[in-house]
Amino acid sequence: MLQELCDLTSAMPDRIENLDTPCLLLDPERLDANVDRLRKRLLDRGVGFRPHLKTAKSVEVAKRVMPTASGPATVSTLKEAEVFAGAGVTDLIYAVGIAPSKLGRIVRLRRAGVDIAVVLDSPEQARAVCDASRAADIRIPALIEVDCDGHRSGLLPDDRRNLVAIGKMLNEGAELRGVLTHAGDSYNARGIVECQAHAERERAAAVVAAGILRANGLPCAVVSVGSTPTALYGPDYSGVTEVRAGVFMFFDLVQAGVGDCAIDEIALSVLSTVIGHQRDRGWTIIDAGWMAMSRDRGTAGQAVDQGYGVVCDLEGRPYPDQIVIQANQEHGIVARRPGSVAATLELPVGAKVRILPNHACATAAQHEAYVLVREGSVHGCWPRFGGW
Amino acid sequence: MLQELCDLTSAMPDRIENLDTPCLLLDPERLDANVDRLRKRLLDRGVGFRPHLKTAKSVEVAKRVMPTASGPATVSTLKEAEVFAGAGVTDLIYAVGIAPSKLGRIVRLRRAGVDIAVVLDSPEQARAVCDASRAADIRIPALIEVDCDGHRSGLLPDDRRNLVAIGKMLNEGAELRGVLTHAGDSYNARGIVECQAHAERERAAAVVAAGILRANGLPCAVVSVGSTPTALYGPDYSGVTEVRAGVFMFFDLVQAGVGDCAIDEIALSVLSTVIGHQRDRGWTIIDAGWMAMSRDRGTAGQAVDQGYGVVCDLEGRPYPDQIVIQANQEHGIVARRPGSVAATLELPVGAKVRILPNHACATAAQHEAYVLVREGSVHGCWPRFGGW
Repeated sequence: MLQELCDLTSAMPDRIENLDTPCLLLDPERLDANVDRLRKRLLDRGVGFRPHLKTAKSVEVAKRVMPTASGPATVSTLKEAEVFAGAGVTDLIYAVGIAPSKLGRIVRLRRAGVDIAVVLDSPEQARAVCDASRAADIRIPALIEVDCDGHRSGLLPDDRRNLVAIGKMLNEGAELRGVLTHAGDSYNARGIVECQAHAERERAAAVVAAGILRANGLPCAVVSVGSTPTALYGPDYSGVTEVRAGVFMFFDLVQAGVGDCAIDEIALSVLSTVIGHQRDRGWTIIDAGWMAMSRDRGTAGQAVDQGYGVVCDLEGRPYPDQIVIQANQEHGIVARRPGSVAATLELPVGAKVRILPNHACATAAQHEAYVLVREGSVHGCWPRFGGW
Repeated sequence: MLQELCDLTSAMPDRIENLDTPCLLLDPERLDANVDRLRKRLLDRGVGFRPHLKTAKSVEVAKRVMPTASGPATVSTLKEAEVFAGAGVTDLIYAVGIAPSKLGRIVRLRRAGVDIAVVLDSPEQARAVCDASRAADIRIPALIEVDCDGHRSGLLPDDRRNLVAIGKMLNEGAELRGVLTHAGDSYNARGIVECQAHAERERAAAVVAAGILRANGLPCAVVSVGSTPTALYGPDYSGVTEVRAGVFMFFDLVQAGVGDCAIDEIALSVLSTVIGHQRDRGWTIIDAGWMAMSRDRGTAGQAVDQGYGVVCDLEGRPYPDQIVIQANQEHGIVARRPGSVAATLELPVGAKVRILPNHACATAAQHEAYVLVREGSVHGCWPRFGGW
C-alpha cells in the first residue's frame, strides 16, 4: 500500500495513529540534526565527507545527506550505484570488493558519466580491473582495501609486497586512486574512549598503506576511512582525505549502546498495532515481528540487550523498560525487560506504539518507504528500494 | 535488475554462473516434490490442506502449492491477501490476530468476493468484528485462536469462559467459523518423535476448544491446525478439518535440523560470488551478506549450527563443512565449521557458490524474485512481493 501512497501523498492520513501498520517512520528533523552533527564535525576538521547510502537506499534521504546533489557518496551494491546515478549522483565508491563479473556494470556507469571507483585487495581483482579497462578503453579507478581490525576484507596495512604489486598493476593498466579501510569492529566499542581508539587504528592503517604506495612512487590521492563510531569520535584525521559513514544518519539502538548517540536522536522507528495480550505472562502482542524489525539482534552482545527493539509511545518517548522480547514473522511480543520492576504495559487492542530498531540498515531494508513524521503528524512519504 | 528481467525472461542468462549476484535461486522440481509429499500425506489422511503463502509471497509459487487456483490458502499480511485475491484466490485466512483498524481492508476484500476469515482471541476483537460486520451489513467470519504451546497468541484450549463469550458474540454479530492453532514451538523439535508429540498437542488443543464451543451450542465448522513439522509428522488428525504449513514448500536448514527434510530437499539457495580471501584465517569472502541471507540464525540453537548458511557448489551439492560463519550487510565470510578438519575451500575470486538458508521465509523476503534453476541451467524468473 505504501508505495502507491507515496505516489499519492494527498491520500495519506495526517496523523500517525491512522497509518496502516507495520510501517516505517522517519523523523526528518532528527535526520537533519544527525547529518548536521557529522557534517560540521568533519568540516571543522578539514576532512572530506562521503556518506554511505546503503543505510537509506532512498534518493530523497541521499539528497539531504550528501555534501552536494552530485555526491560524493558510498554504495554497497551496484543497484544503489545505478539508482543514485539516475538521480544525478556522479561521484561514487562501490565499497564492496569487486567481482570481475560486475565490471560490465561499472563500465556502463562510467560511460554514462559517473565517476565510480571500485575496491579490491588482490592481484586477481586488479588484473580483472585492468583487463576491463583495456577492453573498454577507459581507466577504471580502484582503491586498495586495507584491513585495520581483522573485521573482514583488506590487506594488512604493512603488506608492502601486495600493496605495491597491486598498486603497480592498477597504475599501469587502470587507475590507482588510493586506499580505503573500514573499522567494522568499532561497532563493538563501548564509550567514546574506545571509539577514539578504533578511529586512531583505522586512520593509522590507511595512512601507513598510503605511505607505502607513495614511497614506491605510486599515487594515492584518496585515503578513505570510516564507520559511524570512528567518524563521530576520531580525534585526528591527519593524512585522511575523506570519511565514510552511514548509520549516523538515522542512528539506532546499537549505536546508542556504543554511546555515540542518545535514544532521542534515533530518527527511525516502526509503527505497530497491539493485536492481543497474554496477561498471565505480562505479554502484549503487536503486529511488528521480524519481517518489520528484521532479525537483527545487534544489542544482544551489548551491556543492555534491547531485544528486537524499544517500545515507545506515538510521540516516540520510550515506555520504561518495555522491549520486544521475541519476534515471529508478523508477531512481536512486548514485555518488561528481564529483571526490570517497571509496570507492565497496559495498552488495549488497537493501540499503536513505535519501536526503535537495533540496526537501522537492517530494519529499513524490510520496508518499501519511509513515512515522514514530526511528533504525531504525518508529513509525506519517501520511497526506498532494495535488490542488487 | 531482476524484477525487470522477470518481465523480459529472454534477456536472462541461460546458465547459473552468468547470473548477477547475490540472487535467489529456486529449484522448481524440489518445490514440486515437497508440495507433493505434504499434499499426498494430507490427502491420505482425509484432512484439508491450506498452505501458508507467507513463505513464498509469489503468485506463481502459490499456484503450484494451493489445492486449486482459488485456494484455500493462509496469509500473514493483508498485502498478501490483496495480491493473491487479485490473482484469483478466493478462500483465505488472515492468520495474524486482527486489529480493528484492519477491518476496512477485510470488508473491501469480502465485498470483492473473497471469502477471507480473520483470527482473534479476545472479546475486544470480537466486538470490533461485530461492529464492522454491522456497519458493512455483512458477516465477517472469524476463527478463535487457541494457544497449544505457550508460543505467542491464543486462548488456552480449556478457557471455557472466554471461548464461549467470544463464540457467542461472533455467532450473533458476525460469523463464528471455528478455531485455529499453530504449534510454533514445533520448530524447536528434534526428530520425528518430538514432531509427533507437538502435532498431537496441537491437534488436542484445537479439538478441545472446538468441543467446548459445540457443547455450548455454538458452531465450529473449521478446526485448523498446522506448522511444517506437525503437518509432516502428525500421527492423527481426528477432529481436524484442515492443516496449514508454509516452510515445507522450500524447506531450509532449520527444518533439516528438526529432521523433517534432507539437505538435498531444500529448494531455495542464494547464488553468490567470491570477492576475496583472508588466507591466513582460512576465510573466503563472498558477496552474500545478511542483506541476501537475512539475519536469521535459526540453527544457532540446534545441534548443528549452520552459521548464516551452508556453502554448496553450482549444482547445489554442499562442500564438506563449509558454512558462512559471519555476515555483514553485503559481505559473507565462508570458513570451515568450527572444529571441522575438512579442507579449506579453495575457490578463486569470481567463482560462484550457492548458500542454503537457515530460514526460507526470512531469506526469500530479502529478494525481489526467484530465479528458477535446474542443476546448472536457468529456466525463468518469478517475481515476489513484500510490504503490508
